[in-house]
Amino acid sequence: MDYKKHITIVEDWPQKGIRFKDITTLMQNGPAYKKAIMELTEYAKKQQADVIVGPEARGFVVGCPIATELELGFVPVRKKGKLPREVIECDYGLEYGKDCLTIHKDSIQPGQRVVITDDLLATGGTIEATTKLVEELGGEVVGLAFLIELAYIDGRKKLEQYDIFSLTTYE
Amino acid sequence: MDYKKHITIVEDWPQKGIRFKDITTLMQNGPAYKKAIMELTEYAKKQQADVIVGPEARGFVVGCPIATELELGFVPVRKKGKLPREVIECDYGLEYGKDCLTIHKDSIQPGQRVVITDDLLATGGTIEATTKLVEELGGEVVGLAFLIELAYIDGRKKLEQYDIFSLTTYE
Repeated sequence: MDYKKHITIVEDWPQKGIRFKDITTLMQNGPAYKKAIMELTEYAKKQQADVIVGPEARGFVVGCPIATELELGFVPVRKKGKLPREVIECDYGLEYGKDCLTIHKDSIQPGQRVVITDDLLATGGTIEATTKLVEELGGEVVGLAFLIELAYIDGRKKLEQYDIFSLTTYE
Repeated sequence: MDYKKHITIVEDWPQKGIRFKDITTLMQNGPAYKKAIMELTEYAKKQQADVIVGPEARGFVVGCPIATELELGFVPVRKKGKLPREVIECDYGLEYGKDCLTIHKDSIQPGQRVVITDDLLATGGTIEATTKLVEELGGEVVGLAFLIELAYIDGRKKLEQYDIFSLTTYE
């Protein structure tokens, strides 16, 4: 499937010079969204994931359906102050700005095989922070799965020790 | 299934006197999360939904897997400033605070049958705002689906014109 047909490019958002890749038009299309999730689910299955982890909020849109397809647990990674129980945290730089991500301390068991999902691989900052959180809890990151990869930003380089799968790439 | 077994009560969060219902422990359990989604999916199917709508971020956790199970589109409702294209907006009061929700103007087609999903029905403020957005776009709200309903807050009263389905209720 040509996923790009369903992704909308929004010029100068959230700031000037950024060509934002909007996946809401893909998600609004039932068959396209399902196809994308099934391809990513096949990947997570091949990697023998025990659990799916995704950063808020677009990581949920990708990771939650993969988790239920495979009858696996889904673990949310959220901005500081959003998770109600004991967390560990990790500061990180964004494509535009910086932030602090957290994960519940009891959410990953040591040795669990983890596939991390998000809508987009850009600088890799969010995902790098997420891998650190998972590994601090003893999880093994066996794959990173994205709808979209921006090859011209090269977040892949920052994450070269991991297996990466992207449905569609913008050069 | 006794879903309450998988939901964690967090005392005094996010503020004193609130007994927060934490669904992350349910989501971390693959079979329990899957079972919950399948029950909600059956409901959305019975209501003959054309599209699933959910407010960020926990509405995604519930609504996205339902959408992919039924091969339907999922439309996100997000806080102001988060959606990149033209939106309509609606101010609303929260259980603790107030905020502004937005939806993309092109996301619902007039006459579409919409099931709105969220993790929790408390005051109903978020969901009432979401119904207004959907209806302003010409959608017909044919059902509201929740993991949890807090009967002692009685958000159901505010939403009495709608069909409501909750997996588990706290009296």
